[in-house]
Amino acid sequence: MVIEKPLRAVDELLLSATESSVPLLAQTSAHILSAGGKRLRPRLVLLSHAAAGGTNVDDVIPLAAAVEIVHTATLVHDDINDDGTLRRGRETINSRWGATFALLTGDFLFAKTYEIMAPYSRELNQILARASRELVEGETLQIKAAKDGKIDQTTYLEIISKKTASLFMACAELGATAAQASPAWIDALRNYAFNLGLAFQIIDDVLDLVADSGQLGKNAGVDMAQGRGISVITDRSDAGGAAVAQPAPMTIKQDTAPGPFKEGLLQGHSIEKAIQKGYETAAEFAHQALESLSVLPESAALDELRALARIVIERDH
Amino acid sequence: MVIEKPLRAVDELLLSATESSVPLLAQTSAHILSAGGKRLRPRLVLLSHAAAGGTNVDDVIPLAAAVEIVHTATLVHDDINDDGTLRRGRETINSRWGATFALLTGDFLFAKTYEIMAPYSRELNQILARASRELVEGETLQIKAAKDGKIDQTTYLEIISKKTASLFMACAELGATAAQASPAWIDALRNYAFNLGLAFQIIDDVLDLVADSGQLGKNAGVDMAQGRGISVITDRSDAGGAAVAQPAPMTIKQDTAPGPFKEGLLQGHSIEKAIQKGYETAAEFAHQALESLSVLPESAALDELRALARIVIERDH
Repeated sequence: MVIEKPLRAVDELLLSATESSVPLLAQTSAHILSAGGKRLRPRLVLLSHAAAGGTNVDDVIPLAAAVEIVHTATLVHDDINDDGTLRRGRETINSRWGATFALLTGDFLFAKTYEIMAPYSRELNQILARASRELVEGETLQIKAAKDGKIDQTTYLEIISKKTASLFMACAELGATAAQASPAWIDALRNYAFNLGLAFQIIDDVLDLVADSGQLGKNAGVDMAQGRGISVITDRSDAGGAAVAQPAPMTIKQDTAPGPFKEGLLQGHSIEKAIQKGYETAAEFAHQALESLSVLPESAALDELRALARIVIERDH
Repeated sequence: MVIEKPLRAVDELLLSATESSVPLLAQTSAHILSAGGKRLRPRLVLLSHAAAGGTNVDDVIPLAAAVEIVHTATLVHDDINDDGTLRRGRETINSRWGATFALLTGDFLFAKTYEIMAPYSRELNQILARASRELVEGETLQIKAAKDGKIDQTTYLEIISKKTASLFMACAELGATAAQASPAWIDALRNYAFNLGLAFQIIDDVLDLVADSGQLGKNAGVDMAQGRGISVITDRSDAGGAAVAQPAPMTIKQDTAPGPFKEGLLQGHSIEKAIQKGYETAAEFAHQALESLSVLPESAALDELRALARIVIERDH
């Protein structure tokens, strides 16, 4: 893998970023940042940088760490709002240390992200600042729509664009901009990452329906219980199945409480059909992501970006 | 007042900073940002800039807005942790919209701060990034120490240094740096603001004991109930009373529940003595703040910085 070494450097930086004069914050931050995770966003930064011909990889490692930290901050705060007990295979911070310290840990991680980014150019900071704001807007939109019981297809796509795809896009933009790529290449990588983010989130919502908690490393069924998630896209009539393989069949967890909004969301469709449509729509976005890459020259990094689009669709956790 | 016009521009910018594609976030942000408040931190940025000879005031207005927004973000999150119901004379966001949307509003305001700051130099961003991290560390330290029942004088000073004085210091540093002041002038304004911040927080903790909620515009007695606050400095034997007038006597709110840590904190002293010592210590820090200004040339802005040090000590809300 072309980015194996820089990814290890990102992991080391993530751990040193947990340093604090307040032992509790060092402890809670290390608890969540050392728990692993897919490191998908740092990969996107590093691969976009490499695919755009960047060679200054040492400059890009802190950027890759910063996007992982801001993502982790949102997870820590989401777990408070969801009363989540399991994250990345570990007890959540709110479950172990209480909601107050979880709130402060999320704030601490936001501040750490800012501190890592501050020495970089205004261009790079503007990319991550906008994405950070959109993350919060997407999460708010989701919770508000779920409370109101009104998640239609348009709202669902707006939510996942903001809460997931915008940070994916920022990752590609950070990597490509740091590589001083041409506007056309930056645009291609942005489009790739935005579509990848949409596909990723749809699959995430599908997995939330079908996987059990042990497989996911987080609480399954939460999204559905809260009236959000994949089932809203079952009314998407224009979703053509793109040529991306579907994963092996999985057991559908019909026993995870679907919550009060289930009927409105499924809109007459079965959970099975919602899942099938989810895979089809995600495959379509993954296909668009792959197409965006066509302007870039062949490279090992480009191959890995292509592989990533397939992995995102075919993953089972 | 030399900064009257730029302060109005800051207020306008604060309102436009609440813009969001998510109506709920626009609403909650406007609720807290339009509620007024002392705007002490924006004043510090603008006055430091002017006292250091800065003339590019238009460049400094967004900096002044940014520090107010990050401060407000911490208030919104503090109110969740404290179950506060009143802030700046209005119902708190957690009280009116619930803890989840209050959490997201605080995150949104952090992101907005970052977005406003991103176009500025790395030097200015590093100043605010460090202060933001210290704000969170100070708040965490305070809650942890209160929970453990261990707030001694050293811990109290570390807490107020981080949670209050560090942002005050950053305000002065931002203003003076944007004015391209000499290192000696920047240092003088930093020292002024840091000491002012310590004095301000001590008086805040005294007022929390003596004022009623209507006067403060927030819940009085909360700090004391949670085992933090001014009473810990009653063992400060070296506190000499500096030449700053004490305010008129106020009724001591002995009926606000002092919480389980009261005895340990008062360390044998009465609340009256804790208050008296609090004023003396705050006066001492205010005196140090005033002394720091001696290297700066006389100006209307310098006069206002001096006046601020007196107002901080003599305020009753």
